Amino acid sequence: MVKQERAARTRQSLVRAAAEVFAREGFVSASLTSISRRAGVSNGALHFHFESKQALARAVEEEAAAVLREIGRSSGGHSGALQHLVDATHALMSSLDQDPVMRAGFELSCGFPRRADGVDLRGQWRGWVEQVLRDAEFEGALAHGVSAMDASVAVVAATVGFEQLGAGDPKWTSGATLAQFWDLMLPRLASTAALPRLRSAGTLSAQ
Amino acid sequence: MVKQERAARTRQSLVRAAAEVFAREGFVSASLTSISRRAGVSNGALHFHFESKQALARAVEEEAAAVLREIGRSSGGHSGALQHLVDATHALMSSLDQDPVMRAGFELSCGFPRRADGVDLRGQWRGWVEQVLRDAEFEGALAHGVSAMDASVAVVAATVGFEQLGAGDPKWTSGATLAQFWDLMLPRLASTAALPRLRSAGTLSAQ
Repeated sequence: MVKQERAARTRQSLVRAAAEVFAREGFVSASLTSISRRAGVSNGALHFHFESKQALARAVEEEAAAVLREIGRSSGGHSGALQHLVDATHALMSSLDQDPVMRAGFELSCGFPRRADGVDLRGQWRGWVEQVLRDAEFEGALAHGVSAMDASVAVVAATVGFEQLGAGDPKWTSGATLAQFWDLMLPRLASTAALPRLRSAGTLSAQ
Repeated sequence: MVKQERAARTRQSLVRAAAEVFAREGFVSASLTSISRRAGVSNGALHFHFESKQALARAVEEEAAAVLREIGRSSGGHSGALQHLVDATHALMSSLDQDPVMRAGFELSCGFPRRADGVDLRGQWRGWVEQVLRDAEFEGALAHGVSAMDASVAVVAATVGFEQLGAGDPKWTSGATLAQFWDLMLPRLASTAALPRLRSAGTLSAQ
């Protein structure tokens, strides 16, 4: 049991070290030696857990995908689908800013050539946004004449933009920038009944 | 003269070939040999024009920056700053879709590690969007309570998102998606006086 725990911890530090090295050096240039050194394990230990750099990149993306699923699940309160969406965008940007695994996971899926076996994090995010906006439409929380699809085009594009721009300048993933975005969007997206209850800065304690 | 023209043509085909090879193989993996072969010139001719792959990437980015400046200049009509912005976003997405140099130029500035001497195409675009929205504000074309800065955060983020998502799926850079985006945004951004004259699909003949 102790041995299993140690193995899980080693695997975890390798994934985190890989994320940090990919972010600093890029996937192609990153060497397995600098990853194992950063994780404080031997090359042999690395190869015991991961057969290739590709496998490490995949593990980084899979961990980011799990964090993203958790953001979709846990940021939902009792304030309706639109507030759920606002809260989830705050949680996503905050984790991109603070969690090297999330940042590297999204970076890995950016730029050419796309890795053939890559996890589609943006596709996962897009699917989630579309679903939560369909929920908002079903609740009658969308403004007259605004469909869930119209809204999701703008929200998916803008959040992918914040993610990208935030890699170069953290101002773009800040809570203040995101609140400014929602202050602009919510009066267009939300029904007159839903709008007064919505908080553009999010309702999560972390904000 | 003929010799100068031939040299300029060779340089041009090298830049275009580099853009195509970078897009397919990525900057790090791309070889100078595959670039010169694609351009139909010798390795010697490539080295006569460009001392390194870095210099080729820089030339791709500089050409994309020139196209971007031209988009900002030429898409302006007599329909006011907001229509100028709408038209320029259509022209930008259409060129990202069709011009390998534009696509590769933006791809090169995406993903880690950022190249230290890279041209900041997104910064250039952002500065242009901010300026044209300040013009719109000055014209009184923005809705009551909407500032140029509020609007530019959303427009810059969404257009960077379209650019990124369009690299994987051209639907995102299509005129239809962009018109859907502007149909959602313009009623929020434009003053009641300006709104009826605005065309979300753009006023350029190419649309």
